[in-house]
Amino acid sequence: MSIAEQIRQIAVEARQASLVMARLSTAAKNDMLVRMADALAGDAARVIAENGKDLESGRRKGLSAAMLDRLMLDDKRIAAIAAALREVAALPDPVGEITGMRKRPNDLMVGKMRIPLGVIGIIYEARPNVTADAAALCLKAGNAVILRGGSEAIHSNLAIAAILTRVMADLNIPPAALAVLPFTEREGVLEMLKQEESIDLIIPRGGESLIRFVSENSRIPVIKHYKGVCHVFVDATADFDKAEKIVVNAKVQRPGVCNALETLLIHKDVAAAFIPRIAATLEGLQVELRGDEAFRRYAPSATPATEEDWHAEYLELILACRVVDDMDAAIDHINRYGSLHTEAIVTSDYGRAQRFIREVNSSCVLVNASTRFADGGQLGLGAEIGISTTKLHSFGPMGLEDLTTTKFIVYGDGQVRV
Amino acid sequence: MSIAEQIRQIAVEARQASLVMARLSTAAKNDMLVRMADALAGDAARVIAENGKDLESGRRKGLSAAMLDRLMLDDKRIAAIAAALREVAALPDPVGEITGMRKRPNDLMVGKMRIPLGVIGIIYEARPNVTADAAALCLKAGNAVILRGGSEAIHSNLAIAAILTRVMADLNIPPAALAVLPFTEREGVLEMLKQEESIDLIIPRGGESLIRFVSENSRIPVIKHYKGVCHVFVDATADFDKAEKIVVNAKVQRPGVCNALETLLIHKDVAAAFIPRIAATLEGLQVELRGDEAFRRYAPSATPATEEDWHAEYLELILACRVVDDMDAAIDHINRYGSLHTEAIVTSDYGRAQRFIREVNSSCVLVNASTRFADGGQLGLGAEIGISTTKLHSFGPMGLEDLTTTKFIVYGDGQVRV
Repeated sequence: MSIAEQIRQIAVEARQASLVMARLSTAAKNDMLVRMADALAGDAARVIAENGKDLESGRRKGLSAAMLDRLMLDDKRIAAIAAALREVAALPDPVGEITGMRKRPNDLMVGKMRIPLGVIGIIYEARPNVTADAAALCLKAGNAVILRGGSEAIHSNLAIAAILTRVMADLNIPPAALAVLPFTEREGVLEMLKQEESIDLIIPRGGESLIRFVSENSRIPVIKHYKGVCHVFVDATADFDKAEKIVVNAKVQRPGVCNALETLLIHKDVAAAFIPRIAATLEGLQVELRGDEAFRRYAPSATPATEEDWHAEYLELILACRVVDDMDAAIDHINRYGSLHTEAIVTSDYGRAQRFIREVNSSCVLVNASTRFADGGQLGLGAEIGISTTKLHSFGPMGLEDLTTTKFIVYGDGQVRV
Repeated sequence: MSIAEQIRQIAVEARQASLVMARLSTAAKNDMLVRMADALAGDAARVIAENGKDLESGRRKGLSAAMLDRLMLDDKRIAAIAAALREVAALPDPVGEITGMRKRPNDLMVGKMRIPLGVIGIIYEARPNVTADAAALCLKAGNAVILRGGSEAIHSNLAIAAILTRVMADLNIPPAALAVLPFTEREGVLEMLKQEESIDLIIPRGGESLIRFVSENSRIPVIKHYKGVCHVFVDATADFDKAEKIVVNAKVQRPGVCNALETLLIHKDVAAAFIPRIAATLEGLQVELRGDEAFRRYAPSATPATEEDWHAEYLELILACRVVDDMDAAIDHINRYGSLHTEAIVTSDYGRAQRFIREVNSSCVLVNASTRFADGGQLGLGAEIGISTTKLHSFGPMGLEDLTTTKFIVYGDGQVRV
């Protein structure tokens, strides 16, 4: 069989299996996930041996030490993967939830019931833990899942999948509900993106080029995560201690992630008082500052910011800084340069806090808190399957519920339409 | 300017205007809609004159009498359009609703707030009332809207839009938030579908070929409405009076619409008792029956059904009929041949009713009620912008809320991530 035929068959079988998944009880799904965790922990040696093949070929291909570290599995990391499976088992099941049940004038009872999406395709890069994590979330939400990992981790991914699907087979759950594509040619991705009859949603997890490639070539809806150009606006009424703590945390605690701070906006009324202080603190933490003219008046060591800096997602210890006349100017800047990811205001003014919450329509809007909280775990979703920066279906960090949809349910007693 | 440049400009201006729309108060939006209704009613003569040009050119092009009737506007129909605008004004505003507000262990308050999608593109066919209806729903939900109607109605659509945007301008609301494309070349649709930087959602309303064209050529997410192959399953415990009333209503009341019945499934235990009765009733109403062998045993006048009949969306007085062994067989048939639109069971058995509701994952699932209730107005949405038969973002009849999304909102007091 050609790659195209194989992928088509995997997708059709996943669609069939999704019908079984959708009917599984919460208890059956949780039991499956706990057994998967046990099986992974029990078979760690086999996974580590297969992971060794990936590491060996990674070294031959000259992967960086950081890449090899992301790829590497040992007993501790496998225990962490097993623990994550148990955590997903412990999450509430979104499927079957009924909301908005109401009586219509003709006595029909109408509401909505939450149901699985069907078949979800995940296209991801190096880390093999995604294989188990993403599979667990999709299966818990009653879906089938097709995983296409990176070529660097193919042996690890297949070893993990073999253990998980063996548990499913033992429980009479169709193993086709969890498929890892056994080849890593780009042709495989393209074919996967054509299976719109069988796959309901594609989630790409990786760099911007992967995400662009997937969304430009997919006939299936894609939930995209583009860049995070996150802003903090320090208002005229900000508490400087809180503002400093929040800016430092947002920029420095983990600069390489999408919810890290990239542009600092400062109200002109507090420019003279706040800028020297925050500039000294940030430079003391090795942060390179790039400011507009008004900012550099109070922080002469900052380099001049260019138009490009307002668009930049640095993902390193660089911060663009700008003085704004008022909150309208801050919001205009965010609307013009932002990426709809995450923005925070630091303020003591009730009205401005409420206005910022209301008028800034990024996926996560915070008052007096670090942008680093824009994360499924931190926001209370239990686990995160990704972050959407486009508005359809999901916007912001996505949890189990985002892997479901709703149908209308209607209880009648013989009603007909007049 | 080329068509491509003009459309790009319309889209960019709509994006800008959407930022203003998103901040309008509910009162301001409602006031705008009521004034639009008044202006339309007051300027009916002008709309009717422009509509006359469309009718004239339609007659020259040889449009059918039915098409010309759909196109025609008179005082009564314009009054109905104005009434629909007032109804949208009276609907609750979904924007700003806050749900799921919860305190996290670190005392952050986290919830979700409903916000507009941004810019919505509607691509539709003949009826000029859609221009006002769709615009009203999009604007009420705080969005900008770009409308691309059919060439048959271009004068009517532009006349309606001119009246509505004049009201917006009078109220200092940017008229760019309501754009009707002033040309009807297909090139215009293609260009519109490329404006993914400015348009958030495309909703095609029309025949299957329009919908396929749009979804195959769009870089913007599309909410699709494919066909409605709706089923009624008459269970072994069905009350025959209710079953007959429901089957007749679902098939006969308005056979040309997507929520009309296309396939009747009958439990084998009641085949002998129910089929002669329902066949006589339906044939008395001029319905052509196409049955499997078991069905025709009790309804010899029915013609033999072929595999194609199980897939058919007739949209006329034809009904495919099949006897099934049990509920599993009914559900299997629906999974195999259905279009995920609407299915109903007629039963007196509590357990089967609940199982049907739980296990049939079409967009609308009913117990003891006609499939014809799968409609936004009937289900209580207030007004309907379309019906989605795909599962992302919306599934089933779509109302105002489906023209919005949610963002995370977080109230803190200086919290940072540890």
